Amino acid sequence: MSETELPDLEREQLAGDDESGAKQAATNQPAPNQLDEDDRLKPDFVDAVLEAVEEGDVDAARALVAPLHPADIADLFELTPEDRRRDLAAAIADQLDADVFAEMNDYVREALIDALDARQVADIASELDTDDAVAIIEDMDVEDQREVLRAMEPDDRAAIEEALSYPEESAGRLMQRDLVAVPEHWTVGDTLDYLRGHDELLTDFWEIFVVDPAHKPVGTCALSWILRTPRGIAMADVMQREQTLIPVDMDQEEVALRFQKYALISAAVVDQSGRLVGMITVDDVVHIIQQEAGEDVLRLSGAGEGDINEPIRLTVRTRVAWLVVNLGATILSASVVGLFQGEIARFALLAALMPIVSALGGNAGTQTLAVMVRALATNQLTSSNTLRMLFREFRIALANGVALGTVGAVGSYLVLGHLQLSIVFAIAMMINSVVAGLVGVIVPVALDKANVDPAVSSAVFVTTATDVMGFLSFLGLAALWGLSG
Amino acid sequence: MSETELPDLEREQLAGDDESGAKQAATNQPAPNQLDEDDRLKPDFVDAVLEAVEEGDVDAARALVAPLHPADIADLFELTPEDRRRDLAAAIADQLDADVFAEMNDYVREALIDALDARQVADIASELDTDDAVAIIEDMDVEDQREVLRAMEPDDRAAIEEALSYPEESAGRLMQRDLVAVPEHWTVGDTLDYLRGHDELLTDFWEIFVVDPAHKPVGTCALSWILRTPRGIAMADVMQREQTLIPVDMDQEEVALRFQKYALISAAVVDQSGRLVGMITVDDVVHIIQQEAGEDVLRLSGAGEGDINEPIRLTVRTRVAWLVVNLGATILSASVVGLFQGEIARFALLAALMPIVSALGGNAGTQTLAVMVRALATNQLTSSNTLRMLFREFRIALANGVALGTVGAVGSYLVLGHLQLSIVFAIAMMINSVVAGLVGVIVPVALDKANVDPAVSSAVFVTTATDVMGFLSFLGLAALWGLSG
Repeated sequence: MSETELPDLEREQLAGDDESGAKQAATNQPAPNQLDEDDRLKPDFVDAVLEAVEEGDVDAARALVAPLHPADIADLFELTPEDRRRDLAAAIADQLDADVFAEMNDYVREALIDALDARQVADIASELDTDDAVAIIEDMDVEDQREVLRAMEPDDRAAIEEALSYPEESAGRLMQRDLVAVPEHWTVGDTLDYLRGHDELLTDFWEIFVVDPAHKPVGTCALSWILRTPRGIAMADVMQREQTLIPVDMDQEEVALRFQKYALISAAVVDQSGRLVGMITVDDVVHIIQQEAGEDVLRLSGAGEGDINEPIRLTVRTRVAWLVVNLGATILSASVVGLFQGEIARFALLAALMPIVSALGGNAGTQTLAVMVRALATNQLTSSNTLRMLFREFRIALANGVALGTVGAVGSYLVLGHLQLSIVFAIAMMINSVVAGLVGVIVPVALDKANVDPAVSSAVFVTTATDVMGFLSFLGLAALWGLSG
Repeated sequence: MSETELPDLEREQLAGDDESGAKQAATNQPAPNQLDEDDRLKPDFVDAVLEAVEEGDVDAARALVAPLHPADIADLFELTPEDRRRDLAAAIADQLDADVFAEMNDYVREALIDALDARQVADIASELDTDDAVAIIEDMDVEDQREVLRAMEPDDRAAIEEALSYPEESAGRLMQRDLVAVPEHWTVGDTLDYLRGHDELLTDFWEIFVVDPAHKPVGTCALSWILRTPRGIAMADVMQREQTLIPVDMDQEEVALRFQKYALISAAVVDQSGRLVGMITVDDVVHIIQQEAGEDVLRLSGAGEGDINEPIRLTVRTRVAWLVVNLGATILSASVVGLFQGEIARFALLAALMPIVSALGGNAGTQTLAVMVRALATNQLTSSNTLRMLFREFRIALANGVALGTVGAVGSYLVLGHLQLSIVFAIAMMINSVVAGLVGVIVPVALDKANVDPAVSSAVFVTTATDVMGFLSFLGLAALWGLSG
């Protein structure tokens, strides 16, 4: 896609194009009047655009949207009710360029793309970096995909077909094929001449890769080093040999962690034989970091992707599945309660206090679980420190249990004045707190060892354990002691 | 800090320093033998280092650590039990440079720094970018801070004192003062000559800022554009006027969202009068994105920072506070149960089924809550679409409620054979599912409007609502219908 993506920007600027200059000067800060202090589109602004669209005042809608950054136009679509997005798209069609599609939420984009024919989709994809084009095309069904690919230039098509041949969410899907690579024996001057002489090269890049004759990367060179080095020096003497290479089949989450750990701006992607096949830049990784880190909270709660633009049907399917699993689990704890129907019938107050014991365990277990899931996701929890963390959580759980048990015992005694009940209540809380701490570590670590995502499946095991143990310890102790009103 | 941070790297490379060349060649991939496939230090490796330290074999320990990246040395300390970290530090003291401290977990670093005198800390801080130096110094108590600052060079001290004058977690703390800014009237050639002629400039930068005579940024120029433009062209014609400026007092979370939204590599930081005072680069932002996104899951569960290196005392304090609040809330739902002691004493099976109704509500509410908290944190949920999202969640909750109620009714009838009980059970589940969906949206949105972090405080309100409504609807309906075994 080198030819098309080149330098609209640069050409405009070098030519001092008037219109574009005026537009840019007006937006030195990104569209300040349309955005609130948190960079969100103001509701008034969204309403004004939609009103103009509804009244058929296409010019007014276009004038409003003109100063927006592509990311903000994408946001505008997400903030527009589903049934009005097509009208909006029709009204501002000429402002709806490839960059806007690249920034758009997957579901919103998919719905809009569905309305376009293969030719139009191919045009959009051709203007994007490989990774963005792939993001648009990979979600289409095979038939549509084939049609779009047929409508593309052979070069672009080859790039996308290659990307699609790598697993989903792998480095191969994330990388762009356009990059600047120079041979080891070149000087800085050779490199500068090459860059100035080749208009078809991509415009935005931050590092240059130095490769050997087999096209294997041997070093990386930040542009700032090149700028500060005399022309006669060899690239091999400017480049940094210590570099982080990304295998083309590496999972995107690992790619993101590697970028973060080593503070990378861009990195070379290599195939099985070590040849340079692409480049990943940090701006493509930033949203993955955000997404992967935010996913944990959604997975722990069984909310799936948690995408507010997801069709309701899919959302319900994901959430119901999780709720049914949990329903099954609560039946287990309910049957524990069932064992003690006799005690409860004799002393119904037990039924009022027992949910407190299980809720405490559930809350404490969720705390430990959240900490462990994060520590696993950020590679902080490894075999080296698992045992130490288990012991750490045990001590925390014991301290929590003693504190809460004491508060619970004193409080319940003051209110209900039943000493034995309060003692049983306190002991059950302590037991359940410790159980919560232990399962809160053991469950996610064991699932992780078994290559199951601990964020997805831990919660149901932990809360089932704390529910069962909460009811069992409290009602069991009450039965043993023969408590009654 | 310009003088010290300069180009150890560059000088070594230009001089073709042998030793460094050998070391670098050996580590083309970052230390492959010490790391597992997820870039985590192998337990065997950690054990080997600690064993060498324990046996007093300093040379062996150093040889093992030598090939590691600073980020991995920092990890090594985090994986080492607390009581053995000082010995490790003493053994590999000469490998423990400023970069390692910059990469280290706050708590681990603080404990190590405490053992150093002010002179040593000042030396470390002098070698770092302003933002990293500030991160080390800002956590010290005022007395120690003053001492360290006194031991620093006046320039470095001024930079850090200025940074410390900005609020915590603001752009001012995050930025570095070192940057390359050139006047508008310069040509590309002027800029190149300036860069080559000034050795004291920082080595790693990705964009050059163009400023007017009042030192206000008027444009940004990626290095790749400069490299590809003839020397005679004016900077004003190469730069992009459309730029994202960061106010110096902006919260770091907003900074991170802005970097992400506009795919920035670096951005100019300006003071109240619009003057350029610093620069933030994406590598400083990446860990904030990760941290802020991951924080939600910890806050929702009441686990505070959730840092596994936090002293236990602090962890217990945070978690107990949350558990006590929740204990208070469960008393409310327990007293609802207390109202129906008569019904429960007559029909103890109610006590076994009622936790299922409240647990379903709790799970469903947590799902909605997790989605809403993420949507608020990523600026996807705004006044423009709140009502639409409330309606969306209502429809999801209704569908969930009908599905789960049906499963619950059929299941309980098959097991217990009590038709009326099963009908009450199903209706209560539907009611509670809808309640969960509504409070799951309303609570976080209301807290956000009141400028309270919805991740911190929402969960207790939502689960209290679903517990109370779960017990009330189930037991209330049972009482109304006069259910009995």
